[in-house]
Amino acid sequence: GRKVLIVYAHQEPKSLNGSLKRVAVEELSKQGCSVTVSDLYAMQFEPRATRNDIVGCLINSEEFNYGMETQEAYKRGDLSSDLIEEQKKVQEADLLIFQFPLYWFSMPAIMKGWMDRVLVQGFAHEFPNCYDSGLLKNKLALFSFTTGGSKEMYEKGAINGDIRYLLWPMQHGIMHFCGVRVLEPHICFAPEYVSEEKRKEMLTAWAQRLKTLWNEEPINCSPEWYFK
Amino acid sequence: GRKVLIVYAHQEPKSLNGSLKRVAVEELSKQGCSVTVSDLYAMQFEPRATRNDIVGCLINSEEFNYGMETQEAYKRGDLSSDLIEEQKKVQEADLLIFQFPLYWFSMPAIMKGWMDRVLVQGFAHEFPNCYDSGLLKNKLALFSFTTGGSKEMYEKGAINGDIRYLLWPMQHGIMHFCGVRVLEPHICFAPEYVSEEKRKEMLTAWAQRLKTLWNEEPINCSPEWYFK
Repeated sequence: GRKVLIVYAHQEPKSLNGSLKRVAVEELSKQGCSVTVSDLYAMQFEPRATRNDIVGCLINSEEFNYGMETQEAYKRGDLSSDLIEEQKKVQEADLLIFQFPLYWFSMPAIMKGWMDRVLVQGFAHEFPNCYDSGLLKNKLALFSFTTGGSKEMYEKGAINGDIRYLLWPMQHGIMHFCGVRVLEPHICFAPEYVSEEKRKEMLTAWAQRLKTLWNEEPINCSPEWYFK
Repeated sequence: GRKVLIVYAHQEPKSLNGSLKRVAVEELSKQGCSVTVSDLYAMQFEPRATRNDIVGCLINSEEFNYGMETQEAYKRGDLSSDLIEEQKKVQEADLLIFQFPLYWFSMPAIMKGWMDRVLVQGFAHEFPNCYDSGLLKNKLALFSFTTGGSKEMYEKGAINGDIRYLLWPMQHGIMHFCGVRVLEPHICFAPEYVSEEKRKEMLTAWAQRLKTLWNEEPINCSPEWYFK
């Protein structure tokens, strides 16, 4: 059976994001997948990249360099236990689903902190092993999120610009950089401004998509996809 | 005298980011500006958007909605004290400088948390007062950051794509959305891979730019600037 990690960032289980997460757990489990959820707010996940991420002594305590110190700590097995735990989940997963409400054209800080802290050099990438040869190759990722603005506001020429513009840092700059292939994003536009019925349709559409997810081809993660 | 807020996110005062921050404080103070620094790591700034940001009772404690609750709490003066403090600094500032190392094509989570939590609806924007009529109009912002990759890696057609692609969410999606006009970013490429002399030149170039900063015209924050 395939393994899926859902990294989930919403404060409220009753939210649409909470429901989308539950739908994914149910549907994927029904398919025989083994599903793990990192519920970041419930875990009170630490978003700040600090010295506390390294257990024991630093290589250079005179001038703290987060990137270098975490890379070395990873090699020694001296990353903080919350990071080791998340890395294990990533390592085992065939598919990473990120479920969140769009905050400021990006993911909420608590999820950005997961990226900043978990995807350590040596674990997720290590020059020249980045992009197509990133260390997490053979995995898939899918960004599933809700927006405040409507679909029309996120079109080319509209005020927010094409929604794909804002996917570049997340899909290309993070996931593709680590070698992860990216499936089409799943976007629920403006759920707060639609009817309860429409919101139910959003949940059904997500369940429906998940049924054939494993047949999907990854997107071509090149500038053309984003900015054509 | 003009007022400047520097929002600064680096763990190490001896880093190039730390030096860039100090250079800005010195140069702008010399010009007669009044400069305030929010040193996010030193403040242990909270990046997570949670119920704790609202003092007292919630409008709807059955189903927590962060955006709605913080908007209402702002009106009542019931945001947590750290947010009120940051909003005061923003309100007074003519110019916001964001100084940080680029993490994953974006700002570090601790700074994203500052955006998520401080720029509350009602304070920074309130539909239809967004973009050119955002509530923080008449202010300027400048993103000043360091990268891991070289300038050549952030060019159009290169592996990381044009550096401007990743500025879209930060400059357009956040600052422009709030009505803030954006100055050209200030980017120090790959300081970890250049000589000590080159790093000193980076500091001098920043001090030099700041001398005539107030004569600069904001960029034309439209898709053409980013994706041309």
